[in-house]
Formats: sequence, C-alpha cells, structure tokens
Amino acid sequence: MKTYILTFLFLLFLFSSKAQEDRKDLIIIKEQGTFAVGGSIKKSEGIFDPIEHGAFNPTNQSTQGQTLHGDHASVLYQIPAEPRKLPLLFWHGYGQSMRTWQTTPDGREGFQSIFLRKGFSIYLLDQPRRGLAGQSLEPRMLEARTEDQLWFGIFRMGEGTKFYPNIQFSKDPEALNQFFRQSTPDTGPLDINLNMDAVANLFDKVGDGVLVTHSHSGGQGWGTVLKTNNIKGIVAYEPGSNFIFPETQVPDAIPYVGGILRARGVPMKEFEKLTKIPIVIYYGDYIPEEEVKNPGQEQWRAALLMARKWTKAVNDAGGDVTLVVLPEKGIKGNTHFPMSDLNNKEIAQLMYDWLKEKGLN
Amino acid sequence: MKTYILTFLFLLFLFSSKAQEDRKDLIIIKEQGTFAVGGSIKKSEGIFDPIEHGAFNPTNQSTQGQTLHGDHASVLYQIPAEPRKLPLLFWHGYGQSMRTWQTTPDGREGFQSIFLRKGFSIYLLDQPRRGLAGQSLEPRMLEARTEDQLWFGIFRMGEGTKFYPNIQFSKDPEALNQFFRQSTPDTGPLDINLNMDAVANLFDKVGDGVLVTHSHSGGQGWGTVLKTNNIKGIVAYEPGSNFIFPETQVPDAIPYVGGILRARGVPMKEFEKLTKIPIVIYYGDYIPEEEVKNPGQEQWRAALLMARKWTKAVNDAGGDVTLVVLPEKGIKGNTHFPMSDLNNKEIAQLMYDWLKEKGLN
Repeated sequence: MKTYILTFLFLLFLFSSKAQEDRKDLIIIKEQGTFAVGGSIKKSEGIFDPIEHGAFNPTNQSTQGQTLHGDHASVLYQIPAEPRKLPLLFWHGYGQSMRTWQTTPDGREGFQSIFLRKGFSIYLLDQPRRGLAGQSLEPRMLEARTEDQLWFGIFRMGEGTKFYPNIQFSKDPEALNQFFRQSTPDTGPLDINLNMDAVANLFDKVGDGVLVTHSHSGGQGWGTVLKTNNIKGIVAYEPGSNFIFPETQVPDAIPYVGGILRARGVPMKEFEKLTKIPIVIYYGDYIPEEEVKNPGQEQWRAALLMARKWTKAVNDAGGDVTLVVLPEKGIKGNTHFPMSDLNNKEIAQLMYDWLKEKGLN
Repeated sequence: MKTYILTFLFLLFLFSSKAQEDRKDLIIIKEQGTFAVGGSIKKSEGIFDPIEHGAFNPTNQSTQGQTLHGDHASVLYQIPAEPRKLPLLFWHGYGQSMRTWQTTPDGREGFQSIFLRKGFSIYLLDQPRRGLAGQSLEPRMLEARTEDQLWFGIFRMGEGTKFYPNIQFSKDPEALNQFFRQSTPDTGPLDINLNMDAVANLFDKVGDGVLVTHSHSGGQGWGTVLKTNNIKGIVAYEPGSNFIFPETQVPDAIPYVGGILRARGVPMKEFEKLTKIPIVIYYGDYIPEEEVKNPGQEQWRAALLMARKWTKAVNDAGGDVTLVVLPEKGIKGNTHFPMSDLNNKEIAQLMYDWLKEKGLN
C-alpha cells in the first residue's frame, strides 16, 4: 500500500516539477498597469456653463472657465512575481516613446521583457508631450515633414537609404518599416525642465530605482539626479547632449559638421550629486574619432568626445562613471539603438553584469 | 526509510501545491509585445543627399527626396499561458487611447488585465494619429484648448465640475486627475477610413477575434466588419455615431440639443455582413429618453435612439444584436466609461457571460 502511495506522490511531484519547468518560458506578473505622473493644469478665464458651452463643436468651442490637464508623463509598469529590490525606469530618446524598450523592429523581445524575465520591476515612460502623454498645455504645429532618411543617418543605420556594412539590424524590409513607425512627434514644445520634473516625480512615487536613458534623455537623466534622491544608478545608451559640468570647469563647446555641442555648468555642490551613484555609458559603432563629412556621424563624434570629458570630470570629483565604446570591446555593428539591435540580448547581458557588479541587481 | 521518503515527497508535493495556489493571483504571460500595423508612406520630390541634408535642424530642414512612414495603428498585445481560441481586440474612443482599457482612474485593474486573467489574448490599439501611433502623414495644429469640463459633460460624469448623484466614479480627486490625463489629442486630421483600414489590417494579421469598441470606435467597428472577415463578434460600449443602415432604410437624422446625428447607408449586400456575427451594445446611466437642456446628455439620447433603430434593422435582417441599457437591468451610476467605472468587474462579467452565451469564449 505504502508503495502505491509513494509512487502516486512521486508522479505528482514529477508532474509539478514538469509544470514548473514549463514555466521557465513564461513571464510571471504580480501586478501591471499604467498611470500619469507630474504635469500641471491650465485654466481659462470666465465661467463654464454646462448648458451653454457643453456641446461638442470642434471648430467653434468656448473654452471659458475650463481647465486642461497636461504636461504629465505616462507610465506603463510590470512587477514580476518575485521582484528584485530596485526597479528599472526606462526613458526614451528624441522622437521616440516607450516603444524603444518594447518589441524590437524585427519582432524579438526588447529590454522590457528581457529584464522582466531577469526579475526586475519595469517602468516605461512616455515623457510629457509625447506618445500616450500627448496632452500638452502649449500649442504646437505638427508639420508631418518627410524626414525618415535624416533620422536613418542620425540613428547611424547608414547613409541615405544604404545600411552601414555589418550592421546589427535586420535586412528584412518589414524591420525598417516597423522601426520608422516607432517615431512619434512632440505634441507640444520640447521642454527638458518639464521632462526632468516629471521623471523626478516618477522616482518620488516609485522610490529607489535605476534610471535607463537613451540619447536625448541621457543629459536629462544627469539633470534629473539633481532633482531627486531616488536614482541609485544610471545606465545611459548614447547620451547626446545636456552634459552637466561644475560651473568652473565647463569645457569649450565642440563644433561638428552640422552643429555645435555645448555643455552646461552648475554649482559644484549640485554637480557632486552625480559623483554619488554608479553610472555606465554605452556607445555603439560607426562613430568616427576624427571629423568626417557625414553629419549623421559627426553629431556622435562630438557626443562621444563630450562624454569622455564628462566621465573624467565626474570621476576626478570622486564619481564612478564607466564609459564603454562597444566596438572597442569587440562588439561591432551597433546603431544608435543598441537596446533593440540584433545583438540586444548581449547588450542586455552587459548591462546586467554592470548592475550586478555595482550591487544594483 | 520508506516513511522518510514518503514524508519528504509529501512535503514537496504540498510545497508545489502551495506554489500553484500562490500563482492564482499572478498573470502568466506566454508572449507580449508591440507592433505597428497599416499606414502608408509619403515621399517628397527630389533627391536626399546624406552629406548635404543630414544635419538636424528643427527650423530649417530640407525634406527633399525623403519619406515619412505614418498613419499606422500601434498595438500592444499579451498572450496568456493557455489562451482561449479567440483574442479580444480593444479599440478606444474619441480623444482616448489604449489607456482606456488599462488601469482605471482610481488605480484598479482595467479590462486588459481582467480579461487576461480570464485567459483571453489581448490586443490594445492606438488608432492612427493618436497616442503611440502619433506619426500622421497630414499636418495638424494642436491648440491645447481648455476643455476638461466639456468632456466631463459629454462623458456623463456630471455637469460642469459636479458629479451626478450615485455615480460609479471615485470621489478621490486623484481619480479625476488621472482620468483627465488619459486624454490625448489627434496628431493629424481624424479620418475614419484610415482608422477602419488599420483595424481591418490588424484583424488580417491576428486572425479571427472579437472586437471591443468604445464610443467613437463603435460606428467605425460596424464599418470595419465590411472590410474584414475575421471579426467574429463585437462588444460595443456606448457607440455614438456612424451607424450603418441598408441604403434604402436609412432613418431620418436625429436632432438634439447641440447637434444632429445622421446615419449612413450602404448596399444591402454590405449591410448583411453585420447580420452574420453576434453583437452586444451597452449604454450606461444618465441618458434621458426625452429632450433635456444639457448637451452632454443630449448627444447620448440621440445615440441610444439611433442604436435602438439600428438594433431593429440588423435583427429584422436576420442579425443577432443585443442592446443593453445598464440601468434598465438595475445597474446604475455608469458614466460613458463603464469599462473603468467603479463597478467595472461587474461590467466585465456581463461581457464575459455574453461571450460565453455566443460561444465566443
């Protein structure tokens, strides 16, 4: 009799183990959702009368006495079953949205799901006046300008319509189609103070966490550290502008073909906040060290040069910044979007290893 | 010895059962992601020279020879571990986005997570020129007009700033703050043909499924049935306009305080497609049967009247439309957003029961 029970229980146990094994491919979520954070309210003079002014008329609507809620960030979050201590907060770059961190253009998992599977709580944001946070308190004309090829160049996919050789981007035309359709315009004037305030508000709400930035949010990320004490580390992919230096040590602006890159100065006491947390910066491939004719590359030559100066300035003041130029580590072919390139799992592993090294995992 | 093994295995079994019990509160995802669908590409005359035109200049940028990808829908999907056969595709209303179906204004789970827990695959879309699908191929001026109170009225929350009595909406000011911040503007001219094409494309990609609409997408939903064979049922919350009748039976337009509601005619052969699938329509509370002075309510008096005519027309032609006015079933206090009102679990259960009754679960 005991043998029967034994066998029965053993089979049950095997079955349970099998069920758990199957679950390895699954994403187990404890909680997920969305919310708005930050922003403000504008109000028009006068008194709103719901009878007099309550009919919808898109061309002739009285706004008197009414309010408008806007300039908030919009956030999507997922908390896994057994989350690690520090969540990751992902902030997109210029012309982009939370889509940067979701499915890759060629249809694979992005950092959202990759890091969720590694046990991190994930917060993805659309900054104020972008994507799902579209309600701006300031007007803006959207011009629908044709500029795919401009961005193809600036995002270092290649020149014109021709990819760089050995690029970590799928040659399936649908991948490029999906990539272009990730872009979404500013629905109000771009205002980095508004953005930084909203992200600082998000950290105040979420608590301690690690900020992951991309491109235009890189410099805004440094600025946000000055506005909240909850940022415990930063991973910055290809920061492009708004580097912050002590006001007595602001380096000369860096001219490049197509523009000029200026740094910003703040009091040393403010700057020192950047020395208190570990920071890692990654740049991809196709960034020249010397001046070239192609403005799409030039912008990043200037950014990388500034990032080197910035790394030295923060570390000289006692900070902990690691600057990684991926091709110097033998990782080649990355565009301006390493987080969604073909080798994004390798890029994610690098980030994970750094988080682990710094005790942020 | 055997007793020890027995005890050990029994404890392991209990532990596994406990682990499975804990998982009941969890959302188990097999796959999740995002993609763009539909849309087109516009192109400017001339030739793009990456050296000449490749520098970013927001005020003076040549667009010659460049393309712009736009007018697509943007989709977020989640597939549970053991999905039911038919996925649910959720389409927001006017001025709204996929946020309609996510977390409620008072912070509870919306239909996305509620139906995911019930085992349905979920697709949430932002229609072309809205939210994460912000790239329009046509220009548009965004005016940032103060109109919170206008929508407070049209969405039947109340009049001016005063809630209707017994409303199914939290009185916590943060709930109303979150509600207003769900709105996001059209980033191009509203074009229902563009929208319907994108959603038909989505069904062609996903295959058979059930369409869930809200407000302005209601009538567009009827129109989308004419463009794809993959819609196997429709759940429509408060459809407001674009009701489709046989061209020989188009009812008179319905005037109301603040506007006039017209119906649209199509050939009987087209109309008959609407008779081939089960459809349920839900309306909430505070909709008068007789004319009142408040335009915010009047619009829905007209919509409900038209929906009654439409239900009769489809059913007379052999269709299967059920029209549910929630307060007539004793479910009171619902706004224009039953899916995120305080009783949204009850509303979801009604929808689930209907899906089950029609064999769509």
